[in-house]
Amino acid sequence: MATSTSVQQPIWSLPRAFADEPKLKVYNSLTRTKTEFVPRNGRHVNWYNCGPTVYDASHMGHARNYVTQDILRRIVTDYFGYDVHFVMNITDIDDKIIIRARQGHLVQKFRASNSVLTPRLVDEIHSAWKDYIRSVVNKGLPESEKIVEGEEEDAWKVLSQKVQDVSWKQECLKRYEKFDMAFSEARRAITAIEEARGILESESVANPDAAYRLIDESGGTIAGYLDRQHKDTVTDPSISRSLSSYWENEFFKDMKRLRVRDPDTITRVTEYVPEIVTFTEKVIQNGYAYVVDGSVYFDTNAFDGKDGHFYAKLEPWSKGNREKMEEGEGALSTGSGRRSSSDFALWKASKSGEPSWPSPWGPGRPGWHIECSVMATEVFGDSVDIHSGGIDLAFPHHDNELAQSEAYHGCHSWVNYFLHTGHLHIEGLKMSKSLKNFITIDEILGRFTARQLRLAFLTQLWNAKTDFSELLMTGEVKNIEATLNNFFAVVRALASQRESETVPFTGKHGYDGPEQKLSDSLEKAQADFRAALCDSFNTPVALDILRDIVSKTNVYINSSGKALNVGAVVRTARWVGDMLRMFGLGEGPWLEGEIGWGQDRSSPLDNAAGESTLMPYLRALSSFRDGVRKIAIGKGETALKDILALCDKLRDEELVPLGVALDDQEDGRALVKIVDPVELIRVREEKRGQAAAKAAKKAAAVEAEKSKKLEKILKGKLSPGEMFKPPNVQGGTYGSWNEDGLPLTDGVGKELSKNQVKKTVKEWTLQKKLHEEYLEWERQNVE
Amino acid sequence: MATSTSVQQPIWSLPRAFADEPKLKVYNSLTRTKTEFVPRNGRHVNWYNCGPTVYDASHMGHARNYVTQDILRRIVTDYFGYDVHFVMNITDIDDKIIIRARQGHLVQKFRASNSVLTPRLVDEIHSAWKDYIRSVVNKGLPESEKIVEGEEEDAWKVLSQKVQDVSWKQECLKRYEKFDMAFSEARRAITAIEEARGILESESVANPDAAYRLIDESGGTIAGYLDRQHKDTVTDPSISRSLSSYWENEFFKDMKRLRVRDPDTITRVTEYVPEIVTFTEKVIQNGYAYVVDGSVYFDTNAFDGKDGHFYAKLEPWSKGNREKMEEGEGALSTGSGRRSSSDFALWKASKSGEPSWPSPWGPGRPGWHIECSVMATEVFGDSVDIHSGGIDLAFPHHDNELAQSEAYHGCHSWVNYFLHTGHLHIEGLKMSKSLKNFITIDEILGRFTARQLRLAFLTQLWNAKTDFSELLMTGEVKNIEATLNNFFAVVRALASQRESETVPFTGKHGYDGPEQKLSDSLEKAQADFRAALCDSFNTPVALDILRDIVSKTNVYINSSGKALNVGAVVRTARWVGDMLRMFGLGEGPWLEGEIGWGQDRSSPLDNAAGESTLMPYLRALSSFRDGVRKIAIGKGETALKDILALCDKLRDEELVPLGVALDDQEDGRALVKIVDPVELIRVREEKRGQAAAKAAKKAAAVEAEKSKKLEKILKGKLSPGEMFKPPNVQGGTYGSWNEDGLPLTDGVGKELSKNQVKKTVKEWTLQKKLHEEYLEWERQNVE
Repeated sequence: MATSTSVQQPIWSLPRAFADEPKLKVYNSLTRTKTEFVPRNGRHVNWYNCGPTVYDASHMGHARNYVTQDILRRIVTDYFGYDVHFVMNITDIDDKIIIRARQGHLVQKFRASNSVLTPRLVDEIHSAWKDYIRSVVNKGLPESEKIVEGEEEDAWKVLSQKVQDVSWKQECLKRYEKFDMAFSEARRAITAIEEARGILESESVANPDAAYRLIDESGGTIAGYLDRQHKDTVTDPSISRSLSSYWENEFFKDMKRLRVRDPDTITRVTEYVPEIVTFTEKVIQNGYAYVVDGSVYFDTNAFDGKDGHFYAKLEPWSKGNREKMEEGEGALSTGSGRRSSSDFALWKASKSGEPSWPSPWGPGRPGWHIECSVMATEVFGDSVDIHSGGIDLAFPHHDNELAQSEAYHGCHSWVNYFLHTGHLHIEGLKMSKSLKNFITIDEILGRFTARQLRLAFLTQLWNAKTDFSELLMTGEVKNIEATLNNFFAVVRALASQRESETVPFTGKHGYDGPEQKLSDSLEKAQADFRAALCDSFNTPVALDILRDIVSKTNVYINSSGKALNVGAVVRTARWVGDMLRMFGLGEGPWLEGEIGWGQDRSSPLDNAAGESTLMPYLRALSSFRDGVRKIAIGKGETALKDILALCDKLRDEELVPLGVALDDQEDGRALVKIVDPVELIRVREEKRGQAAAKAAKKAAAVEAEKSKKLEKILKGKLSPGEMFKPPNVQGGTYGSWNEDGLPLTDGVGKELSKNQVKKTVKEWTLQKKLHEEYLEWERQNVE
Repeated sequence: MATSTSVQQPIWSLPRAFADEPKLKVYNSLTRTKTEFVPRNGRHVNWYNCGPTVYDASHMGHARNYVTQDILRRIVTDYFGYDVHFVMNITDIDDKIIIRARQGHLVQKFRASNSVLTPRLVDEIHSAWKDYIRSVVNKGLPESEKIVEGEEEDAWKVLSQKVQDVSWKQECLKRYEKFDMAFSEARRAITAIEEARGILESESVANPDAAYRLIDESGGTIAGYLDRQHKDTVTDPSISRSLSSYWENEFFKDMKRLRVRDPDTITRVTEYVPEIVTFTEKVIQNGYAYVVDGSVYFDTNAFDGKDGHFYAKLEPWSKGNREKMEEGEGALSTGSGRRSSSDFALWKASKSGEPSWPSPWGPGRPGWHIECSVMATEVFGDSVDIHSGGIDLAFPHHDNELAQSEAYHGCHSWVNYFLHTGHLHIEGLKMSKSLKNFITIDEILGRFTARQLRLAFLTQLWNAKTDFSELLMTGEVKNIEATLNNFFAVVRALASQRESETVPFTGKHGYDGPEQKLSDSLEKAQADFRAALCDSFNTPVALDILRDIVSKTNVYINSSGKALNVGAVVRTARWVGDMLRMFGLGEGPWLEGEIGWGQDRSSPLDNAAGESTLMPYLRALSSFRDGVRKIAIGKGETALKDILALCDKLRDEELVPLGVALDDQEDGRALVKIVDPVELIRVREEKRGQAAAKAAKKAAAVEAEKSKKLEKILKGKLSPGEMFKPPNVQGGTYGSWNEDGLPLTDGVGKELSKNQVKKTVKEWTLQKKLHEEYLEWERQNVE
């Protein structure tokens, strides 16, 4: 902007802040301290989160992990305003998946081929049961009481008595944590076996379901037996994939119910096997891995200390921890041929009964740790800002991942921040099926809302052990929820009351001591809240700050009487609502400016308004179906053409004014879009206009063609007998004609020359043909 | 967490960022450059925004100002994540308000006491009209043509002719910008006066409404006359306040329709008069103001240069600009007694007919500029981070505000950042009533949506002159809107299609070159978007970045075919939607995770929440249609049967869990009902049970019928030639047989009697028929 004179503005200097912005620090497992958070590229954050191994229903442990990680992600994205790319993998190649899918497949196959209860079937299952007792139940028994072959039945009777002794059983559970489950499986099976024997003895014809019943009841004990017998026959990778695909879908359904945001990008191991092979090849080339019998192992000794590398950065003290290593390598691992006990598989030669993919080292499958290295590298390259996962994964999974990736990229800090979410305990104990405190997400959501669960996790530090207890849920959590709900209800009521009034002339403002104090409290709360989240996402403190400002606002409301400044209260309520929604605690749709964190609203279909919205669509659907039925019932000749016309009518007539576009696609499935009807109508009319123009052009061409044909036909109207006579030739051209009308002499009586005769005959023959065509045309077209 | 050994983690160092975070810079009117934004107190921002003077309907100029300021506030709050306290004042003491309220009050009073049309009333109004001509209309006329007392009526006739001359009228408008309005007022009044005289002459009894009609039509011309006569009688401050209260309410209604957020705190001048008096006293004490005849003036010469103070920091070159000063001082100002022409009123002694408040200097009222200084000080104290307002207010309003406040606080930078929004032009011209391009907010919202208006402002720099034109709205803005709507509709359709499918086993990931390129484009867009907003809120560039990434995503969608990675597209769409909603472009309620910016209101569905409700129904409809089309296109033999099966599947499988019942009726049209799905499932299962029972019964009957038939057929197995021979009859019953096996003699050789022969022949004939039937059955059924 030009200034009109040479007068200058005074010098301005940058304000001196008396309080600096707090910086975000995060508890980083790489240092086990809170370190300042610095992403590599401005405000962009690459974030890789370890996803689930999908082979069973998700449980409270998953809820703890993924809801907590979702809270961290929301704080980083929505509160601190980083641009986050959040990637999560799905582990769909895994020993547990392979075994479960294979055993499930074999049990089903066994069931399908044993539809009749025979003594032989019962014997086979009984024998499998004995195997189970010795190989599984035995794991929990003291050395002196292990069941030996041939004595299974007597031993079982003794065992069934002993198990009543709670302290004895506790000892068994210490030896083998699934002892209780194994014992129950065996009991269920033996009961079914005895029942089956009874049926065979007493009844001449067994109940047709008896065989199925026996197999279903003893499935848990025969799976291992069948697996040992037939596992070689199961190699199709799609058997595993169909199991994992089912559980992946279930996982995301659960996440949606928990209001966990979808990852920005999902990577599945089955989709990255060729990339894993290439990655592994380079690790070998770089000298950090070796091949043994078709398997590839990471060489921890070669890596550790070489070129500044360090193995097991997260838990150097766990290096060589046999128990942790074994869990990391999986149940199907043999472990033979390694140079060091710390070495781990990048690639496993597949044994019989295991799915396999081709590789330079023969058919095999990826090790567990390699997947995350490869997939994160594929998406992010050689640097990851944040890697998150459950604390269980720190060693060996994440340490091996780091080693592989740094060996591949030749770098020293592939991941800058490792965020590990803490363990979950239920009523003070580790959750496990044997302790009967195992809770699926489906079960927990039957008892509490997603908001209540999330509130429970927010009251705990993300990286500390969380104790999930009945007391926490029914006490603290419901308390917080009720306080907040009540607060918002009061503020909404006050605000709506104020809106219905005009501003009276008071001569006094309502922004005095109490309001200034409330405003100061709010601003302190905002600063403290920020400080809490900067302090490694301290949500328990942040939540306390929200509760405290709510309480202060309630005090203000209750003590103000008529002098109440509703605006000051609304300001606080809006901020509290914004922060709660930022944490993912919102419920239902939210309208800009609404006070609160959303209400649970009944489905739009439950009320008349929803019904009236939906009905036009349903009528379109139903009338289309009516039409199709009528045609199908009538079975008219042109039925199928009519059906296509109906399809077009639904798309072009009925759905257009409803704002629904059906785009027919090549695969025969239409893409359903909801679009502005005005736009849809415009596009339809444009298309129709084009079609009409095309049709008109075609019709004109047809008409022209017709005229041309008619012209040609009308040439034949003249009979050949008349063609050489007047008035068709000038009088006097010819003198006499034969009976066919061919001229014999010319106008002066002279006979026609040979050439003249030839010419006239040729013309006559041509006209005869045209005339015949004309007569035929006349016969057909002229009445 | 304790470590089990003394092994230590390696040293970790802070990542080296290769790109720093961009810093927010804002165009600061105090420097007329873009300066880095540093709030005084961490992330807390004190923001004072100049609010409206409320005495008339809000217009496009207000929309430009407040929508633009709302956009800046949203960016600072929701994008940059500052904790903002946004304060706005309502100017409800002002010369314009006082005059308008007083005149309105006097006209109403005059109306109330003149309910009968009398010659006296008409004369009085006619005389007021003449006053108006001379005092108001005259302002626009050239010196030589000014109307003089006594010649008003003749001059009016001449004027009415001259006004037809457009260029002559333009000259009048140059002299007095409200000339056109004044002329219209006068014309309306004189027409009413003539009509009233006609009524008085022609009718014995005047229409009871005639007096009111005359006063209402001539109200604009008598207001000044009445004011001069009676203004002394109007001193109650609530008369002004009731006018401003009405327009304040209207203003906030308009803001709500424009989706401008409510201020956190609203301050009204009428509510801060005692604080203004105290503030003024301190300015006098500090030596920067003086009292003249009950008024208090700011002493610019005393202030400028003293103790480092500087007067008119924003526009030092405007110091002493008489035109701007007069506008600042108001129509009721006398201006006498000032020490310098730059001095301005802090407190004005009220003249007769002006509302007044007590003060140490006698009854008076606040000057205009003092209000913001006092109210901002009351809320924020001695430091304001951001002060915003229209560019018109920079001098003298904001400069005087700064001087007063710095004089009061003894500080040198009471406001650190002054953000002034640019002028608004309509089709290239300044908006004014005389140019007939004056548009109220109500009018503009009848033609465009709030979203379209906001988009229009976003396409322009906040601090530049905006040209609002028909072309901008119907061209660029509608274009942007349609592009975005279409993009979101496509992505929603793709996402919803994907959700209805399970993940197939492909063995290949969908994150290859094109997806990496899209991801890179998105991340670049995110960084560029941030850079644009950091560059003094450059929304036109930011909007272009959003359009560009939408276009790139569309290219990706269209070029990917079956390999399309829906997740990659959804990621982009979510970010674009988030940013649009951040700008305040959201419409309707928004459900967490929804793709888009809310639905266009022309859609029958109010919002995307409705869309997610509807989609399952639409998918049922569409997949049914897909099936019908496939059959019709395939034209298989069993097509029509298949269609009926599809109809049943839609009714029994797809719609039942959606809570929709189709009851087939005799006329071929199904009744559509919305019912509880649980009930529908129960009824369906019951029907299925009944059908199964019926089918079982029918099967049993068929079986019985079959057995009966078989029995009959098997009777014919016996050949008639053998039927009378053993073992079919007892040996010895017959002795000899003919060639057909008919018996000739009985067991003792005696010939059969006639009756016996008749009987055996009859039996033989029957059996022959049965046997033939049997042979035929056997031929057909037994291989």
